[in-house]
Amino acid sequence: MLQEILNDVGIAVFAASGALLGVRKDFDLWGIVTVGALTGVGGGILRDVVLGITPPSSLQNWPPIVIAAATSVLVFFFHPAFAQLRRSVLLFDAVGMGVFATSGAAIAVDQQVSAFAATLVGLLTAVGGGILRDVLANEIPLLLQPADLYAVPALLGAAVVAVGGGYTSVPMWIWLVAGTIVATGLRIAGLIFGWRLPTAPAGRRRRR
Amino acid sequence: MLQEILNDVGIAVFAASGALLGVRKDFDLWGIVTVGALTGVGGGILRDVVLGITPPSSLQNWPPIVIAAATSVLVFFFHPAFAQLRRSVLLFDAVGMGVFATSGAAIAVDQQVSAFAATLVGLLTAVGGGILRDVLANEIPLLLQPADLYAVPALLGAAVVAVGGGYTSVPMWIWLVAGTIVATGLRIAGLIFGWRLPTAPAGRRRRR
Amino acid sequence: MLQEILNDVGIAVFAASGALLGVRKDFDLWGIVTVGALTGVGGGILRDVVLGITPPSSLQNWPPIVIAAATSVLVFFFHPAFAQLRRSVLLFDAVGMGVFATSGAAIAVDQQVSAFAATLVGLLTAVGGGILRDVLANEIPLLLQPADLYAVPALLGAAVVAVGGGYTSVPMWIWLVAGTIVATGLRIAGLIFGWRLPTAPAGRRRRR
Repeated sequence: MLQEILNDVGIAVFAASGALLGVRKDFDLWGIVTVGALTGVGGGILRDVVLGITPPSSLQNWPPIVIAAATSVLVFFFHPAFAQLRRSVLLFDAVGMGVFATSGAAIAVDQQVSAFAATLVGLLTAVGGGILRDVLANEIPLLLQPADLYAVPALLGAAVVAVGGGYTSVPMWIWLVAGTIVATGLRIAGLIFGWRLPTAPAGRRRRR
Repeated sequence: MLQEILNDVGIAVFAASGALLGVRKDFDLWGIVTVGALTGVGGGILRDVVLGITPPSSLQNWPPIVIAAATSVLVFFFHPAFAQLRRSVLLFDAVGMGVFATSGAAIAVDQQVSAFAATLVGLLTAVGGGILRDVLANEIPLLLQPADLYAVPALLGAAVVAVGGGYTSVPMWIWLVAGTIVATGLRIAGLIFGWRLPTAPAGRRRRR
Repeated sequence: MLQEILNDVGIAVFAASGALLGVRKDFDLWGIVTVGALTGVGGGILRDVVLGITPPSSLQNWPPIVIAAATSVLVFFFHPAFAQLRRSVLLFDAVGMGVFATSGAAIAVDQQVSAFAATLVGLLTAVGGGILRDVLANEIPLLLQPADLYAVPALLGAAVVAVGGGYTSVPMWIWLVAGTIVATGLRIAGLIFGWRLPTAPAGRRRRR
C-alpha cells in the first residue's frame, strides 16, 4: 500500500521532469504530455518487455499513465512553479528512483530470472524513463553525463532485492524496504556530499 | 481485402517519408532503405513486441518490408518527384495513419488486452514508425512539435475500435471502418482548418 | 567452443567502440561503461526481445555484460592506446560482426521463425548494438551514413545461415562457418577495395 503510493509519487515526479523538458523544447500540449507520460511509465514498460510481461502493465491498467498525463498537464499550465520546485523535488525523485529500482527487481524475481538479471531489470526500471525522455528530446541522456550519482544507487538498491529476495527466505517486503533505503539514501547522500564519478583521464582524444 | 490494400498503401507512404528524410540527410542507399523500411513497418513491430507477438509479423512475412524497401529505392532514384508530391501525399498518409491506428487496436483486442491498452497500442502502431524515423535521423520527433493534429486523431480512431470492438457485439469490421473514418477524417479536417494544439503559456523557462 | 570465443571477442570489440565514443563525448565512468556494455550486448538483447526470449540471455547470464563492462573500464583508463589500435581492431570487428550475424540467425532458426525473419534477426544482432551506441550518444547512426560496407555483409552472412540452416539437412555448424566467412570476408574485402554504396543522385533536395 505504502509502496503503491510511493510508486505513484515516483511516476508523477518522473512525468514532471519529462513535461518540463518538453516545455523547454517548445513542444505543444500533445508533445509535452507524451514525453511526460513516457518518462513516468517508460521504465516500467521496458521492464515488462524485457521480462515478457505483455501487454506491459502500465498499458494494461490506466492509473499509471493517467497520473503521468495529468501531472504533465499541470506542468503545461504551471511550469514556472514546477521549475522553481525542482530542487525540492529532488527528494521525491530520489524516493521514486528507489521504489522503481526495488519494485522492478522484485517483479523480475517473481518471473524467476537470475539475480544478475533482476538487478539489471531493477536498474532499467529506474532509469529507462529518463533515457527515453532524453532520446525523444534529442539530447544526450543525463544519466551518461558527469553528474550526481544516480544509476549506481539504483543498481545497488536493485541488487539488494535481487540477491536477498531471490536467495533467502526472509520475506520480500523486508528486502524492498532495505533496497529502497540503500538506493534512496545513497542518492541523497551523494547529493549532499557532491559525490561524482570521474571522467576519463586526459589523453589525446581521437575521433572514432 | 480493402484493409489489406490500404495497409500496404500506408506502409509505402510512411516508407517514402522515411526515405526522403534519409536523402535529405545524405545517407547512402543502405541508410535510405533502412530508414524507409523502419518507418514503414516500425509501428507494427513495436505493436507486436508490446503485445508479445514474436517474431513480429512484419519480420516473419516478407511483403511489408519488401513494399517499404522497394518504395525507398524508388525514392532514392526519383526523390525530387516524391518531394514535390509531398502535399498530395498527405491524403494517403492520413489514410495510412487511420488504417494503422485501427488495425493496431483490433490486433490488440484479439490479444484480449484491456480497451485502454488497445487504444494505446493502436496509437503506437500509427506513430511508432515516424518516431523511429526521427530518432534514427537524430531529430526531435515531428510528432512532439507544434504541428497539425496527428496523434490525437490516431488516438480517437483507435479508441473507437478498442471500445466498440472490445465491449459490444457489433462486428469488428464496422468498428474498423468507423474508427478509420474518425482518425482519417479528423486528420484531414485538421489540415484543412489548420487546427493546432497550444504550446505552454509563456513564463520564465528554466533549464532542467 | 570456437564460436563462443569469437562471440566474446566480438562483444569486447563492440564494447570498446562504444566506450571510446563515451570517452570522446566526456561521459563519466558510469556513462562510458553503460554505452560500452549496451554496444556489446545490445544487438543480442534486441534479438531476444524480437524473438520472445525473455529475459534476454545477455541479461540472464553474466559473462557477456561482464566482458563488455570490463573492456569499457580498460578503455576508460587506456583510451589513447585503444584509439590508436582502431585500425588494427577493424579485423576483430569484422569477425565479431560475422559471428553476431550468423549466431543471431541460427538462434532465430531454432525458434522456428521464417528464413526471412531469421535473416533480419541476424542483421539486427550484428548492427543493433552500434545503433544503440549512436542513438545514446545523440549521433546519427554510422550505419546509415556513407561508409564502408557493413550491414550488407551482415545481411548476406545471416541469409546463408537462415536459408541453409532452415531449409536443408546439412548440419548447422557448416552454415555458421560459411555464413561467417561470407560476412567477415565481404566486410574485409570492402575495406581493402574501398567498396561503397552510392548516395542519392543530386536533385533539388527539399525539406520534409
